Amino acid sequence: MVSKNQIKLITSLQQKKYRTINKLFFAEGVKVIQELLDSNFELEHLYSTQNDFEAVVASKKSLIHDADLKKISALATANTCLAVFKIPNEKIMEESGLMIALDSIRDPGNLGTILRLCDWFGIKEIVCSKETVDLYNPKVVQATMGSIARVNVSYVDLNSFISATHLPVYGTFMDGVNIYKTTLPLEGIVVMGNEANGISKELEKMIKNRISIPRFGEIQKTESLNVATATAIVLSEFRR
Amino acid sequence: MVSKNQIKLITSLQQKKYRTINKLFFAEGVKVIQELLDSNFELEHLYSTQNDFEAVVASKKSLIHDADLKKISALATANTCLAVFKIPNEKIMEESGLMIALDSIRDPGNLGTILRLCDWFGIKEIVCSKETVDLYNPKVVQATMGSIARVNVSYVDLNSFISATHLPVYGTFMDGVNIYKTTLPLEGIVVMGNEANGISKELEKMIKNRISIPRFGEIQKTESLNVATATAIVLSEFRR
Repeated sequence: MVSKNQIKLITSLQQKKYRTINKLFFAEGVKVIQELLDSNFELEHLYSTQNDFEAVVASKKSLIHDADLKKISALATANTCLAVFKIPNEKIMEESGLMIALDSIRDPGNLGTILRLCDWFGIKEIVCSKETVDLYNPKVVQATMGSIARVNVSYVDLNSFISATHLPVYGTFMDGVNIYKTTLPLEGIVVMGNEANGISKELEKMIKNRISIPRFGEIQKTESLNVATATAIVLSEFRR
Repeated sequence: MVSKNQIKLITSLQQKKYRTINKLFFAEGVKVIQELLDSNFELEHLYSTQNDFEAVVASKKSLIHDADLKKISALATANTCLAVFKIPNEKIMEESGLMIALDSIRDPGNLGTILRLCDWFGIKEIVCSKETVDLYNPKVVQATMGSIARVNVSYVDLNSFISATHLPVYGTFMDGVNIYKTTLPLEGIVVMGNEANGISKELEKMIKNRISIPRFGEIQKTESLNVATATAIVLSEFRR
């Protein structure tokens, strides 16, 4: 059974405003929830249609009907479980190693996929401009498939951060040097730009290392790569 | 003005059954529609809230209100235009060069993103198992960003196709050889597996070349790459 107040609270967490006020977010599906439970995230309450998650104490979980899960779910097709977690305090960013900086990534699926990629390639830190979609947006949490527990995401004034960093800064541009033919360092910050507009003009001025992923198909003016797939190729090149 | 019958027809095209019966599909947004108009797709009718697409004859377009566009749109936030196109006859597949085979890709965004990637890397042919999501699903069309006009997609019995091909067949597996340390050919078929289950057991038996993308992060049993980002890395390695 889920009370009206619980439904109201959980659905409100689809909006950033209410996540910030309540310091709560939610995740759906066994895999993502298990990953969050296994890491440092503090569970507020778990709702499941099944008698699972045996390690969770009884006072922190409710067995609910499919119809109730549907009411609190943010998915078109509800899963079998939804868990509300506390939003942890922001960790201090470690400015070292290979890092990704995101300049106004708006699509939650893209941010989640980039987190998952960073986790795969052992990138510990993502720095986002304040305009980038919120990490605790349910669609971001879902797309990370649990990587949210292992990659640290900080929201900063990206222009100030990039202008002050001691690390070499890379960005992908159409006129950059061929990424397959240049030597890439072990440490650095790679800036990835907004889905529609790329990297902002102001930020572009501060990027000394312009790289590009060569196109092998026919030349089409309008063609581009999705930002998450471009990030995949760039990280693969830095790490290979 | 959009008639009730038009609304009924267009919204029915969100389902494969009605796309097949009517031999029609639709696309939304200026960029995708323009790409389809510029290629060989035959326009059935264009609906726009703006006086644009000057090259389209008056009999094939209607100026409509935002409220009407909302009724026919498949998007959460409707664009400014929607165009219905005829589904062309399937082109004959050319079994040569580098090809991608998709074993039951279910997510429309993944198929669309893979098409866009293939277009970037000059891959002309994608072969899909019959269980793979339909190419003319509105979410696939949207995610291709126009690449649907330049990459040929065929739906086949994938097991029969792979067992009969003369091209070398590659597949990504956790225990495959490090993709960064193996020599990859100019011609071949790369099989990418289902989002949840990977490549099917039956198909796996026919794949002689097992490759893998090394993980650089901490070992996590449950971790994996999204199929579209894995395809990005694999194609980048084959082409670099």
